[in-house]
Amino acid sequence: MVVKSQIKLIKSLQQKKYRSKNRMFVVEGIKMVQELLNSNFTVFKIFTTDLSNFKTRADIVEVVSNSELRQMSGLKNPNQALGAFYIPESKTVDFDDWILVLDDVRDPGNLGTIIRLCDWFGIKNLVCSKNTVDCYNPKVLQASMGSIARVNVVYNDLEHFLDNTGKPLYGAFMSGSSVYKEQLPKGGILVMGNEANGISKNVEKLISSKIAIPQFGDSTTESLNVATATAILLNEIRRK
Amino acid sequence: MVVKSQIKLIKSLQQKKYRSKNRMFVVEGIKMVQELLNSNFTVFKIFTTDLSNFKTRADIVEVVSNSELRQMSGLKNPNQALGAFYIPESKTVDFDDWILVLDDVRDPGNLGTIIRLCDWFGIKNLVCSKNTVDCYNPKVLQASMGSIARVNVVYNDLEHFLDNTGKPLYGAFMSGSSVYKEQLPKGGILVMGNEANGISKNVEKLISSKIAIPQFGDSTTESLNVATATAILLNEIRRK
Repeated sequence: MVVKSQIKLIKSLQQKKYRSKNRMFVVEGIKMVQELLNSNFTVFKIFTTDLSNFKTRADIVEVVSNSELRQMSGLKNPNQALGAFYIPESKTVDFDDWILVLDDVRDPGNLGTIIRLCDWFGIKNLVCSKNTVDCYNPKVLQASMGSIARVNVVYNDLEHFLDNTGKPLYGAFMSGSSVYKEQLPKGGILVMGNEANGISKNVEKLISSKIAIPQFGDSTTESLNVATATAILLNEIRRK
Repeated sequence: MVVKSQIKLIKSLQQKKYRSKNRMFVVEGIKMVQELLNSNFTVFKIFTTDLSNFKTRADIVEVVSNSELRQMSGLKNPNQALGAFYIPESKTVDFDDWILVLDDVRDPGNLGTIIRLCDWFGIKNLVCSKNTVDCYNPKVLQASMGSIARVNVVYNDLEHFLDNTGKPLYGAFMSGSSVYKEQLPKGGILVMGNEANGISKNVEKLISSKIAIPQFGDSTTESLNVATATAILLNEIRRK
């Protein structure tokens, strides 16, 4: 039986305000919980309706009823386990490899997909503007499929961060030049913009090369989704 | 004032069963409705709370109250306009260019994103297995951002469709050979599989070349999301 205050604490972590206050976040589902247990994240506690999935970690597991799990969960149909983990300190950004920068990406599914892409393409550092959606948002974590454990996500003031990096600064713009024709270097910074408005004016003036993904056929579609555009551009960076 | 039977009809189009029965689908939001009005789709009727957005189409517009729009809508917060359009007959698939084939893609967001990608990359024909999510599902339409008007989506038995096309048949497999090393032809067929299970056994045996997107770094992520993988592979097809 879980004490009420703990149910309240865990439930509160659905909201960014309480995640920041408690420096904790939650993931749901056996697979996600196990993946984060096997990562560098420090666990606070696991709540599960079925101990058999976490036998070796009895020290930090609490068996709960379906009803208790439902009270803690952010899901309509909670999936047997919920883990609360501590939010780690961001690590220093390594400028030797490519860095991905997000300027005000708001959709949790997009950010989660982009974290998963960074993981796939070995991009270790993802720098987000302060108004980009929180990477510990449950919907972000769900879309990132555990990749959050392997990508260093940092929130920073972009104008401050991008000034004087000494690195080539690429930005995705509809009006940019074809990425196929670019000689992309071994290290650099790629900036992707907001879903509706693209890269903000203040960040745009720091960009050294505006790049675009060519459009084919007689399409009149306006743009690609930011996650699919990121997929294509990271692939272009790595395929060289 | 809309008659009750019409509200009931429009609301029913949220479900595939009634879309099939009535050969109609709905899109919501001024922008989407306008985009489909300017496409080849045949309109049944537009319902809006604000006529000023559709002044020139008074013949097919019905002004409704917020409450009536809410009764017809599939959204929590309906966005001023809802359009009902007729589902067109599928066109014949043109084998001269690349064709994208989806084997059992279930997530509406993924299918919508993939339709938008086809539009961007000028892929005119998208062939889906019969158990792939319906392309007129409201969540698919929302993610496709109007691209549904420019891509011919066909549902077919894949074993039947893929047999004897006379075209090179590529399939995305985790174990495939690097797409970077492939000499992709001017025309062909690319098959993408289900989110969890990939390409089915019956379709796999028809594939002539298994291709994969290389993974970088020491990542242990299992796979890419099917929409981002499709983005990367369509880009590889077109960039040649």
